[in-house]
Amino acid sequence: MARAQIGIVGGGQLARMAAQAAISLDLDLHVLAGQEGDPTTAVFAKVRRGEAVGDSLAEFIRDCQVTTFDHEGVDLETVAALERRHQIRPGTRTLRAAVDKSVQRDLLQAAGLPLPPFALVSAEADVAAFAEQHGWPLMLKTPRGGYDGRGVWQVDDPDQARTHLDAAANPLLVEPFLALQAELAVLVARRPCGDTVIYPVVQTIQERGQCREVLVPAPIEEPLVERARRLGRTIAEELDATGILAVELFVVDGHLLVNEVAARPHNTGHLTIEGCTTSQFENHLRAVLDWPLGSTDLVAPAAAMVNVLAVDQSSDPAARLPEALALGPVHVHLYGKAARAARKIGHVTVLGDTPEQAAKLARRTAEVLAAPTGPVPAPTGPVPGPRGAGA
Amino acid sequence: MARAQIGIVGGGQLARMAAQAAISLDLDLHVLAGQEGDPTTAVFAKVRRGEAVGDSLAEFIRDCQVTTFDHEGVDLETVAALERRHQIRPGTRTLRAAVDKSVQRDLLQAAGLPLPPFALVSAEADVAAFAEQHGWPLMLKTPRGGYDGRGVWQVDDPDQARTHLDAAANPLLVEPFLALQAELAVLVARRPCGDTVIYPVVQTIQERGQCREVLVPAPIEEPLVERARRLGRTIAEELDATGILAVELFVVDGHLLVNEVAARPHNTGHLTIEGCTTSQFENHLRAVLDWPLGSTDLVAPAAAMVNVLAVDQSSDPAARLPEALALGPVHVHLYGKAARAARKIGHVTVLGDTPEQAAKLARRTAEVLAAPTGPVPAPTGPVPGPRGAGA
Repeated sequence: MARAQIGIVGGGQLARMAAQAAISLDLDLHVLAGQEGDPTTAVFAKVRRGEAVGDSLAEFIRDCQVTTFDHEGVDLETVAALERRHQIRPGTRTLRAAVDKSVQRDLLQAAGLPLPPFALVSAEADVAAFAEQHGWPLMLKTPRGGYDGRGVWQVDDPDQARTHLDAAANPLLVEPFLALQAELAVLVARRPCGDTVIYPVVQTIQERGQCREVLVPAPIEEPLVERARRLGRTIAEELDATGILAVELFVVDGHLLVNEVAARPHNTGHLTIEGCTTSQFENHLRAVLDWPLGSTDLVAPAAAMVNVLAVDQSSDPAARLPEALALGPVHVHLYGKAARAARKIGHVTVLGDTPEQAAKLARRTAEVLAAPTGPVPAPTGPVPGPRGAGA
Repeated sequence: MARAQIGIVGGGQLARMAAQAAISLDLDLHVLAGQEGDPTTAVFAKVRRGEAVGDSLAEFIRDCQVTTFDHEGVDLETVAALERRHQIRPGTRTLRAAVDKSVQRDLLQAAGLPLPPFALVSAEADVAAFAEQHGWPLMLKTPRGGYDGRGVWQVDDPDQARTHLDAAANPLLVEPFLALQAELAVLVARRPCGDTVIYPVVQTIQERGQCREVLVPAPIEEPLVERARRLGRTIAEELDATGILAVELFVVDGHLLVNEVAARPHNTGHLTIEGCTTSQFENHLRAVLDWPLGSTDLVAPAAAMVNVLAVDQSSDPAARLPEALALGPVHVHLYGKAARAARKIGHVTVLGDTPEQAAKLARRTAEVLAAPTGPVPAPTGPVPGPRGAGA
C-alpha cells in the first residue's frame, strides 16, 4: 500500500514541525509554501511554492489525498468548492469560525457556550451603547487577520474608539476590558469519526497580546480543569473540527469564558513535542487521516514553553545557540525565520517538577537566544502576570 | 552569524533522524546520499547524490564546515588526505578502528581493555591452534563490512571453518563461542575538547547476530553499570572519538568484555529520541560542532526499543500503521526503506515503568508493522534471551 499522503497549506513553523512528525511515521507530506523563505522550504523535500488562493490552492488540494492547514489565511471559497469531492480537514464549517472571530462568537453563542459580552460595531454610537452597559476601557478587535496582538486595541474613550473604527475597512468586535485571573488553553485532537483526545489544560501568559509563555499544569483547581476540558470537547463537536482545535479561555471571577479558537496546531501546544507522549503535530496528522489518536499524557510532572521573540533584526539565535544549550536541559526549536522586532522565531521547552521551575530555565534560554548582538543582558524577572483581556 | 553547517556522509536512517534533530536547532545540514532511494532523499531538502569515495567524497567534505558520518563504509584514504585542513569528526584514528574489527581489537588490547580472546586467522591451522586453546564451537567474523549478523558465523568444526576461510578474500577474526549472560551497550557523546556525556547503559537483545531489542535500565547491578560507563569513556578517549561512540559489551562470568565499537549514532541509542532528555542524534550534532552537550537523563523509569525487521518484501508498514498506532502509547519510526527479509525498516520505542512492560508493547507494535500482507499473526512470546556470541 502506498504511504498516507497529506498536503499542508502554508509553509510556516507549524508545517515545519508537522513535517518532522511526518518523517517519523514516513507519511508522504507535501507543503504549499507561500514564500521562498518560509520555514519549511530550506529543510523539507516536498515543498511547492504557491499562494493559498484560487488555482494554486485548488491544484494543490486536487493533488492531495487529505489537505490540512498551517494557517487560517486561506481562500475559503476555493475550499468550499472542493470539499465535496476532496478530503479537506478541517472543513469550511470549522475554518469559517476560525478565520472570523465574529462568525466564531455567533456560532459559540448559539451553542450556549460561555463568552465574554461582545458586539459587532461599525459606528461610534454602537461603541457608546456597549460602553454604557460595560464601562470603559473596552477592547476592539478585528474579526479577521489579527494575530500576536495585532488587530487588538484597548480603547479608553470614544475618541480612541473612533480612530480605530475610522481606520477599519469592516466592523470591529467590541468586548469589555476584563479583569483576567488567568488565561488558559485546551487543545483537542478530533477525528472525522468523532474520536477525540484532549491535552492537559495549560496556562498561557500573554504580553502585549502575544503569547509569551505556556505552563502546564495550569494553576487551577480540578473542577475548572474538568470544565475546560469539557468546553474543548464541546466546541470541537460544535464546529465539527478535525485535526487539532485550540481553545483559548479566560478565567474571570472563577468562571471560564471562551476567548477564541484556532483550527490547527497551536503555539500553546508546542510543549507537547517533548512534554506529552504524542505531540500535537503527530496527533494532528493522525486525526486528519482519521487514524487512532495518541496518548496526550504528560511525560513529566510539569513543563513550560517560552517563545523566542526577536528583539529586533539583529537578534541572531544561530550565534547564541551554543550559549543557550549550555544553560541546562532545554529543548530548543528555531524556525529558520529572519529576525525582526517581536517576531516569533523559535521556542524553548523545559520539563521539570513544577511549571515555575521549568519556566525559569526556559525563559532564560529564550532570552539568550533572542538577545541582539553583544553581551546578553543579565536575567530579567518573570514576565508580568495577566492584567487585561488578551488577543 | 551564519547557521552552523554540517555535512553527513551517507543518507540512511541515521542521517534521516539526525536531520530531524538538525531541523529543531535550525542547523544547516547537508547529506551525501549514496543512492536515490536512501531514507533521507524523499524527505530532506539538502541531499546531494554521490558515493562516499574519491572526488565525490572530497568535494562534499571541502564544501562542509564540519563533516560527519552515517555509516562506516567510507573511503579512509580520502578522509586522511583532507583531515588536516578540514574538520572531519570523527577522524581517521577513530574511523580506522570502527571500520576494521581487527584494528579495533589491536588498539583496545594495547590499551589494556578487557576483550574476548581473539586471533586473526587465514589458514585452517590457525583456527585449529585457536580451537586447541578455546575448544569448539568458534565464532568467525569478517573484520570489515559485517553488520546485522552478516559476516559472522558460528563454526562447529574444522570443515565449517575451512569453508568460510576459503570464501573469504582476507583473514578472519576468530573468537571462542562465549556463554553470554547478557549483551550491553553504552553510548558516549564526546566533543573535540574532550567533554563527554554518557547515556544510560542498555541491554541489547540479538537474534541471529542482529540487534532486535534494546532495554533500559539494563538488568545489571550498579558496580557493573559503573564499569560499563568507565569503559565507554576510556574507549572514547583511547580512540579520540568525537560525536557518538557506541560500545557493545558482553557480560561473561560477571565480567565485561568489549565486543565492538561504532563511531556514529547507533541502533542501541534510538530509544534516546523519546527516552532521554537529549537524543543521541542531537548530541552527535552538538558534539561534532564542539558545542555544549545535552543531558542524557532518562525521562521515564524505563524504556524499550524494538526494531521493525521486515518479514519479506511483502511487509508493508505503511498499511499497518493505523493498526499499530492503536496499540497504545508507542513511538513509531519508519525509515522509508523498501522491505526485504530481515531488513531493518523502522523501530518502535515505548516508555514505561519497567523495561519488560515497555518491551512487551514495543514488540507487539513492531510485529504488527512488520507483518506481511494478510491478517497479523497472534502475539508471539518474548524474543529468546542471549545464547551465544553476537555480531
